[in-house]
Amino acid sequence: MQQSLDPLARKLGAFVTLGERETKALEALQGPRTLIAAGKEIVYEGQQQHAAYVVADGWACSYKELQDGARQVIDIQIPGDFLGLRSFLLRRSDQSFTTLTDVVVTKIATDRLVDTFHAVPRLAVALLWAASRDEAMVVEHLVSVGRRDAVARTVHFLLELGAKLKLVGHGSATEFPCPLSQSVLADALGITSIHLNRVLRQLRESELLIFRDGWVTFLDRERLAALTGFDYSYLDLETTALR
Amino acid sequence: MQQSLDPLARKLGAFVTLGERETKALEALQGPRTLIAAGKEIVYEGQQQHAAYVVADGWACSYKELQDGARQVIDIQIPGDFLGLRSFLLRRSDQSFTTLTDVVVTKIATDRLVDTFHAVPRLAVALLWAASRDEAMVVEHLVSVGRRDAVARTVHFLLELGAKLKLVGHGSATEFPCPLSQSVLADALGITSIHLNRVLRQLRESELLIFRDGWVTFLDRERLAALTGFDYSYLDLETTALR
Repeated sequence: MQQSLDPLARKLGAFVTLGERETKALEALQGPRTLIAAGKEIVYEGQQQHAAYVVADGWACSYKELQDGARQVIDIQIPGDFLGLRSFLLRRSDQSFTTLTDVVVTKIATDRLVDTFHAVPRLAVALLWAASRDEAMVVEHLVSVGRRDAVARTVHFLLELGAKLKLVGHGSATEFPCPLSQSVLADALGITSIHLNRVLRQLRESELLIFRDGWVTFLDRERLAALTGFDYSYLDLETTALR
Repeated sequence: MQQSLDPLARKLGAFVTLGERETKALEALQGPRTLIAAGKEIVYEGQQQHAAYVVADGWACSYKELQDGARQVIDIQIPGDFLGLRSFLLRRSDQSFTTLTDVVVTKIATDRLVDTFHAVPRLAVALLWAASRDEAMVVEHLVSVGRRDAVARTVHFLLELGAKLKLVGHGSATEFPCPLSQSVLADALGITSIHLNRVLRQLRESELLIFRDGWVTFLDRERLAALTGFDYSYLDLETTALR
């Protein structure tokens, strides 16, 4: 595991051993740290030529709004995650991004990607890995919404979030800080806030997990994982692959 | 638009202008063409160190099976699509892949990725773009299953498939060959085969689209696109971005 303090370097380091060369190139790709207040829209659906960022601190989410006003939250961005890089590559953003807390970001110098990949090709493989892992999470959300009941999909989502946070040094195996409102969580799970409330009460009464005052606590991780068929391997947290 | 006959080069060429250097590097990354019969499992969920391929001809699909035996089809692979590259990068496949027709594939020399990215960094950007577009499609499936009714999600899926096929030179703006069985299509849409049958009848009777004898015909693309809020821009089929 990479001992760097930068959450992105730490995350990529779980896949590719990053030497001084790669770490410096990764730093050089990013601009200065900028603060964005909570509740700001950073990129909107359909926007062209927008910037792409790395989240250094705080939480954001990506979502799509439908013609009838319904909203599907696609993903949650935490420290070490890209924000809008995929949308940048697609030139026109296919989703919107909004901050959920105050967020510190660095802007990616997208015009230097080709040069950087030439100089440090391992970084290109690491970024492909990160994109693959992000897609694996969207796939899990698809499977959840398509085939898991409300309890199983809530549990799956929170176990995944806990594992993602732990990788970048936030929270522990049994609890993590979670500033998500119930309405954002419900829109991610594709259920109503009232239904979510009932699910969370049921999980609390079964002594499985508690989500209260901005913290999620797993009371019985084994039973939780069994309940939803959670398999940590898709998060690919095992030993570094490319040395 | 790239005039090469290779569907992957043609697809990537929609994003990055590929010169002789890039085209040759792309060829060198791929092994000889191999035929795989219809109905074969190519990669299974949980498999480690499996190969990654490019589909040269034919159709395949990726899916996940749940504990209770339910199946969610994640995506359909057609000529020019990667098959298992994302899973390879994640080391342990997070999904299974099976052929739907006889399929011709080429194996990717994944051990040469780093060297190739050093030599032709534009190819790395093109592959990141392709991964981004694939993820955009999974996002659309998530939105469909989470927030669109059965008619809208069926229409959305078939419009997307038509656009993807057209990009690699199969089908036209109004019709395309579609070897998907109703059970695979139903598992992709997260509805039952009986329900799908009813939806397809309704679409036919409304003179919107026909899916019969292995062909999909759009009778009124404008009404179809309006019905489901279909926005071609997420498929990123506009002019080449990186010249």
